[in-house]
Amino acid sequence: MSVSPFEHPYLSGLLGDADMEAPFSVEADASAMLAFEVALAKAQAEVGLIPAEAAKAIEAALAGFSPDVEALKLGVGRDGVVVPELVRQLRQAVAGDAAAFVHVGATSQDVVDTSLALRLKPVLAILDARLAAVSTALQALDDRDGAVEVMAHTRMQAAIPVAASRKIRSWRDPLARHRERLDAVAADIGVVHFGGAAGTLEKLGDRAGTVTKRLADLLDLRPVDRARHSERDGVAGLASWLSLVTGSLGKMGQDIALAAQSEVGEIKLSGGGGSSAMPHKVNPVGAETLVTLARFNATLLAGMHQSLVHENERSGAAWTLEWMLLPQMVMACGVSLRIAQALLAQVSFRPGGADMKDVS
Amino acid sequence: MSVSPFEHPYLSGLLGDADMEAPFSVEADASAMLAFEVALAKAQAEVGLIPAEAAKAIEAALAGFSPDVEALKLGVGRDGVVVPELVRQLRQAVAGDAAAFVHVGATSQDVVDTSLALRLKPVLAILDARLAAVSTALQALDDRDGAVEVMAHTRMQAAIPVAASRKIRSWRDPLARHRERLDAVAADIGVVHFGGAAGTLEKLGDRAGTVTKRLADLLDLRPVDRARHSERDGVAGLASWLSLVTGSLGKMGQDIALAAQSEVGEIKLSGGGGSSAMPHKVNPVGAETLVTLARFNATLLAGMHQSLVHENERSGAAWTLEWMLLPQMVMACGVSLRIAQALLAQVSFRPGGADMKDVS
Amino acid sequence: MSVSPFEHPYLSGLLGDADMEAPFSVEADASAMLAFEVALAKAQAEVGLIPAEAAKAIEAALAGFSPDVEALKLGVGRDGVVVPELVRQLRQAVAGDAAAFVHVGATSQDVVDTSLALRLKPVLAILDARLAAVSTALQALDDRDGAVEVMAHTRMQAAIPVAASRKIRSWRDPLARHRERLDAVAADIGVVHFGGAAGTLEKLGDRAGTVTKRLADLLDLRPVDRARHSERDGVAGLASWLSLVTGSLGKMGQDIALAAQSEVGEIKLSGGGGSSAMPHKVNPVGAETLVTLARFNATLLAGMHQSLVHENERSGAAWTLEWMLLPQMVMACGVSLRIAQALLAQVSFRPGGADMKDVS
Amino acid sequence: MSVSPFEHPYLSGLLGDADMEAPFSVEADASAMLAFEVALAKAQAEVGLIPAEAAKAIEAALAGFSPDVEALKLGVGRDGVVVPELVRQLRQAVAGDAAAFVHVGATSQDVVDTSLALRLKPVLAILDARLAAVSTALQALDDRDGAVEVMAHTRMQAAIPVAASRKIRSWRDPLARHRERLDAVAADIGVVHFGGAAGTLEKLGDRAGTVTKRLADLLDLRPVDRARHSERDGVAGLASWLSLVTGSLGKMGQDIALAAQSEVGEIKLSGGGGSSAMPHKVNPVGAETLVTLARFNATLLAGMHQSLVHENERSGAAWTLEWMLLPQMVMACGVSLRIAQALLAQVSFRPGGADMKDVS
Repeated sequence: MSVSPFEHPYLSGLLGDADMEAPFSVEADASAMLAFEVALAKAQAEVGLIPAEAAKAIEAALAGFSPDVEALKLGVGRDGVVVPELVRQLRQAVAGDAAAFVHVGATSQDVVDTSLALRLKPVLAILDARLAAVSTALQALDDRDGAVEVMAHTRMQAAIPVAASRKIRSWRDPLARHRERLDAVAADIGVVHFGGAAGTLEKLGDRAGTVTKRLADLLDLRPVDRARHSERDGVAGLASWLSLVTGSLGKMGQDIALAAQSEVGEIKLSGGGGSSAMPHKVNPVGAETLVTLARFNATLLAGMHQSLVHENERSGAAWTLEWMLLPQMVMACGVSLRIAQALLAQVSFRPGGADMKDVS
Repeated sequence: MSVSPFEHPYLSGLLGDADMEAPFSVEADASAMLAFEVALAKAQAEVGLIPAEAAKAIEAALAGFSPDVEALKLGVGRDGVVVPELVRQLRQAVAGDAAAFVHVGATSQDVVDTSLALRLKPVLAILDARLAAVSTALQALDDRDGAVEVMAHTRMQAAIPVAASRKIRSWRDPLARHRERLDAVAADIGVVHFGGAAGTLEKLGDRAGTVTKRLADLLDLRPVDRARHSERDGVAGLASWLSLVTGSLGKMGQDIALAAQSEVGEIKLSGGGGSSAMPHKVNPVGAETLVTLARFNATLLAGMHQSLVHENERSGAAWTLEWMLLPQMVMACGVSLRIAQALLAQVSFRPGGADMKDVS
Repeated sequence: MSVSPFEHPYLSGLLGDADMEAPFSVEADASAMLAFEVALAKAQAEVGLIPAEAAKAIEAALAGFSPDVEALKLGVGRDGVVVPELVRQLRQAVAGDAAAFVHVGATSQDVVDTSLALRLKPVLAILDARLAAVSTALQALDDRDGAVEVMAHTRMQAAIPVAASRKIRSWRDPLARHRERLDAVAADIGVVHFGGAAGTLEKLGDRAGTVTKRLADLLDLRPVDRARHSERDGVAGLASWLSLVTGSLGKMGQDIALAAQSEVGEIKLSGGGGSSAMPHKVNPVGAETLVTLARFNATLLAGMHQSLVHENERSGAAWTLEWMLLPQMVMACGVSLRIAQALLAQVSFRPGGADMKDVS
Repeated sequence: MSVSPFEHPYLSGLLGDADMEAPFSVEADASAMLAFEVALAKAQAEVGLIPAEAAKAIEAALAGFSPDVEALKLGVGRDGVVVPELVRQLRQAVAGDAAAFVHVGATSQDVVDTSLALRLKPVLAILDARLAAVSTALQALDDRDGAVEVMAHTRMQAAIPVAASRKIRSWRDPLARHRERLDAVAADIGVVHFGGAAGTLEKLGDRAGTVTKRLADLLDLRPVDRARHSERDGVAGLASWLSLVTGSLGKMGQDIALAAQSEVGEIKLSGGGGSSAMPHKVNPVGAETLVTLARFNATLLAGMHQSLVHENERSGAAWTLEWMLLPQMVMACGVSLRIAQALLAQVSFRPGGADMKDVS
């Protein structure tokens, strides 16, 4: 498990984040996919589309269900998506007459996209809480060090002395704006995806709307008029937001690394990284990593927007590209916030050198 | 003038757009920069920071001012930004005692970023109007052809027949969402940028807030607490939005090109491009170009987000990168909407071939 | 272990590749890093920089050494790089007087970059062999189906009939060119990295060159005049090559998916993916995934080139970004070649429909 | 003409480059396209495919031909490519019986891609010469300042003192490697593109090979077995190379900007940019712009590699994307080399401050 920088046995010491990783585990994914299938059966039973007993049998059978992951893996290799094999396993687990009532009228993308929506909801709440925590840490830093006079730099040259508060607020204000932006992003993510083979719920007839609403209600998601299978602005918008957050933190990291330069010394970092060749050094590892994660997400963002060109009613090519990129962007955002918070605990401002003040 | 695809003497036949180009002309830019300087003088005169006569003299002198563009060009080559040379020219034009009161307390970025804000405002209004027009065209297409039965395709294979309406709505709904998103994007763009050398308006003392508010009022922009010189989430957010729009239209273009394939024929295009080798062909040029523009903006978006890592109080490197990317992204968005509207006038749906229906 | 698409418990059924994953395991990395340290000690002993006994003791002690991975993880979290903690563990393992002779004059980047070079060498050989295998498969397809008459398509429209051979060769020729390009790429990768703290090997005096040559010899790498710590054109060039390969295969995948469309039917795929909603479908999963992997590598490539801006003698920010991107690009390339080979075994060409021929 | 940063009336003072712009002018493009058509007629006359008189008439008529650019623009808007309208104009200019022998067996892409190849050849020679000039400037700097002791910095912290020569060589060596890489890149670019409607030269029968060879000979390009219309590795490889060059220069620019910081002062820049707010400043505009151009090309590179997914025998979408990106990447590379040379004339190294030496 070492190709991934986030889950690498030792790189995860820098880039790991258990809270961000959890929702992308097979356990979390399977649990969310099962929640979809159970809620679907319930909703369909309520309107008489499937027998009430079938819904009950499905719920009971899936309560203790654990998928055969090796078979899922084979299924993905064959079908390009996990759902056909998962549904096969679920029907086997349900068995009997009820088996045929699993996944009625649904398609793979309903399950996968709704599972993602279910798992992203708490992730976005965590990211929001971390944004709040970083903001609080910045406020505390401002309260303590805001009055320290440091040098402003424009175009990589000393400009005029300013209060450290000016710098700290330029790091903090964007975070507040990102929190405001999150509401709209989260609303676009937290929808139920239910459209069937081609997005028309053709097998549900005039009960499609009722089932969708009830399904959304059971899953605590928002129902939408039509399944958005091929409309990827929700996830692309989330990707943009994730990159805005890492970008703003990357700016803070770059500023801190510059201010902590040996020759500048306007920020002192307690702790910091060691060197195998030069034990005297205190490397601003966290600050640098914020820059790394900003550039990482900025890079991957392009791919998420390429995926907007999602041809026809479902594009295997564009959809799979999202799977390869979005979880990493979420991780990078969560890690960046975690590092930012730890870094700020190490930061203290010191007045700029006297000779610097001559510059202005 | 041929490196730019948008302004190329003949490529502009495909990729040009006078409405989008206009705000990026030197005339428009100079006009906006002058508006900033005049409003600044007025606002400062009102609070007694500069003599009232000076403000009047500045307004009068700049009313008929036209910059020496060759000198501006030399100035940019030297200073990396146009403002120092422009201010020199303005002071020369104002002459006399009032000359010293031009650009008081302001910095290059105040002028350049506010000029951009002033010019983007009407651009965003045009983009919004075009989104509305494309939506209307899609509604008309839905009204006329929505009932035509065509084949849905998932993973590049025929799935089941659906009404053309289903496809049309999957193109139209994202545009409505983009229009909703535009409000927040426009609010972040339409702010006045006024911070002085290091963002602290140190030369204005306790009148900084009053001047900023009045300046914003005079320019019909929104005042903000602190200049956002180094906080680039506004422009990066705009870039994301532009790419969302082109991405959604690229999806529509890809769908149309696929449905218009000779072998599919579910969309018939009246007009369309010719071939030098095969005069019989009708190429879906507009549809393809929508895909091109989507991939173009998705590509450039990464650079706009790289620019979020805007070091210190002003980064020449990151700021210049925005200048190289954002105007092109705006153009690509405007062109894409223009082409989309023209393309929809060419589209008519035809029922899928009988043999196709057997597939499901 | 599920954020990574390549190592995900079930997505790896589609996107996994044990051969590509192996060199990125901790075992392979540790083994290569130890090989560096052992070879370094040997080379230094030979020129009298360290005692011969120390080199022997180091070799002996490290023969059976297995790192404490949890401690490495903590070390990376602290230092941003694994080497300081690894060297600490190695010195502890060697113990006694010889301990101080581990890692003499070397720096973290020497170890990490040389380890990468050692591990990439066999990877590039595998990629080359896979390119050869895909070429052979294309030759076989050409031999069997090359004479089948199919429709050429330009700008998404039927153009004129051509022999399938024409298409097959347009897929095959680039692969031959990529193999030719690989020599230069591999030469730039297969170098020893040895420069010490700031690339000057200042602790080795006039024996720096001799030790470097011997070190390279022992590791079967190429010595270079000066350590290329901050010169990243080698890895960026590799990244470009990886993306060229996946791009060419993505083009083949796109072509196959288009030719296999239900309405076109000029390529028939035996096997292929199933659908949870439409069991009748045969989805061109492999072909689509080639497109996905092409777009994935094209996306990540931008980040590898951003990393060329590697400030000063060593950039934590830029270097870490490489760690996050390059292994994934290697994986994507290997997976793409694996899928291409499997896909070609499923492909057979069928003559284009008679009605299509009327088009020309 | 202001959307383009390279051709902007005043931004071109920083980002313009007449040598790089010239080959992308309509004049240069038209001239190259006409050279193709004339050479094609000649080559075809020699093998008896068209009458010798026709070839002569074509050559004579096109010698003084100047296209109607407005009509070309309309043509591109309609056809998505300039060639159908250009050929119409050419046939009109040739008139008489010979008119029908213009562009025989050729397709739009033959003309456009060969024109690009013809125009890029001298561009690559200029870039090579500039690389040589920058290398020479670096050698001169090394000769003069190489012995100055400056501080090496790793991870944004002072490491140990090194000779400036170490830094200079880390800037120079990659340029030498880029020059070596250029041969292969140029060989892939300098090919004749001639394939006809679907790449098969079906209208030339068994004389296709002879005509191609002769055409290549007349144009001083390399003939290739089959037209590479849909095989875009040549241009994608060029794009990678362009980004390698700007990336290496961006690294140099970043290093210079860091060393020229007010607090570091190990590089002194004579000249440099002014500020509208702080006349005392000397901004490292050239150094920053090298970083900008590196990030610009790294960004656009992703789009060029996305274009490798060039579907079927000719993709309007992918091909047009190249037109939008490649000229800008060429410009950015040329501008970067021009700025690098000017910047190096401003650079002088100064010994690092005494207090810095204590750090090690």
